[in-house]
Amino acid sequence: MDVAFVLYPKMTALDLVGPYEVLGHQPEVTSHFVAESLEPVVTDAGLTMLPTTTFAELDRADLIVVPGSGRWEDALADGVVAAWLREVHPTATWTTSVCTGSTLLAQAGILAGRPATTHWAVRDELAARGAVVSTDRVVVDGSVVTAAGVSAGIDLALTLVGRIWGDERGRFTQLFIEYDPQPPYRVEVPDEPPADLVTFARSVFGQ
Amino acid sequence: MDVAFVLYPKMTALDLVGPYEVLGHQPEVTSHFVAESLEPVVTDAGLTMLPTTTFAELDRADLIVVPGSGRWEDALADGVVAAWLREVHPTATWTTSVCTGSTLLAQAGILAGRPATTHWAVRDELAARGAVVSTDRVVVDGSVVTAAGVSAGIDLALTLVGRIWGDERGRFTQLFIEYDPQPPYRVEVPDEPPADLVTFARSVFGQ
Repeated sequence: MDVAFVLYPKMTALDLVGPYEVLGHQPEVTSHFVAESLEPVVTDAGLTMLPTTTFAELDRADLIVVPGSGRWEDALADGVVAAWLREVHPTATWTTSVCTGSTLLAQAGILAGRPATTHWAVRDELAARGAVVSTDRVVVDGSVVTAAGVSAGIDLALTLVGRIWGDERGRFTQLFIEYDPQPPYRVEVPDEPPADLVTFARSVFGQ
Repeated sequence: MDVAFVLYPKMTALDLVGPYEVLGHQPEVTSHFVAESLEPVVTDAGLTMLPTTTFAELDRADLIVVPGSGRWEDALADGVVAAWLREVHPTATWTTSVCTGSTLLAQAGILAGRPATTHWAVRDELAARGAVVSTDRVVVDGSVVTAAGVSAGIDLALTLVGRIWGDERGRFTQLFIEYDPQPPYRVEVPDEPPADLVTFARSVFGQ
């Protein structure tokens, strides 16, 4: 199973590395780290990753993981990720996004009229791009699977492991990465986040 | 605040990127990705990261994050991480590890007689190296903070954000990364994992 992990400048590293850690150790998986060129990609807070292939080279994948970014509007303006998704999505059994990666799926026409989730601070922006926005942490709609913000990529990937290789594998993988979370705070994501919080989050986010 | 994220071959990427995502966006933080040389570091399942500095160059840090590895015994045999920790730990306000990164702290003499946690599959190995092993997800013992396996680095880093910058910042950071987990399975890490599970996990782990 060829898994394409999409890299682009200023992407949120954890959006990618959550699913990578869950999927990359499965013995059936061959991982590809695909970007516009083979140059190093600087992620959101400075951590730099190396692609192994390019959008021009990789023309199919069984599973695609598209991370989000605080600079998602730059990624939309750039357009290269969405152009690649338009070409490769039809070859994939699963096309997935984490966080604002959903806006790239929408730009590629993959979410038109479909249920999808995203980071809580960009729900309106995803709806404006044609998706039927859900507040769920993970949304599975046929072959398209979307996750809420950042850490939700772990939940998405574990859900996929269960669907692809069965619940026993999913349960072992969850135990393996000790995903028995004990967040220090009781923070529930509000269904209707206050507008000032959204504005503040987007200002921090976009830096 | 200078944060040193330690990179070494075959390290578990999520052990590092969980804390990175939580700490790296704090406006007071300058992140350093430190390794033996500036050559690319290939992590556990192929994702490759670029260091920004070397163990020889970076001789102090306010906060140190040491990730684990399925090949932790190779990292101990190599010895370079522990040698650097011995030198730099006295300069740090916080020295932290995720997963089997605890064994490197132990090798550097930082955990002698101290409470510490680690991945459930290597508790005995950490105890054999002098730590008082806990089954807690995060253990704070003065300036030394250890986390259980892989995903527990997120909990560790959020705990640190609260201690360093206060609970309001901690709560916002947790909301920002949407750490409101909904793991698909009910998997609790057993206090006494069965020996065959430990053996199996270590065999998968070390690949």
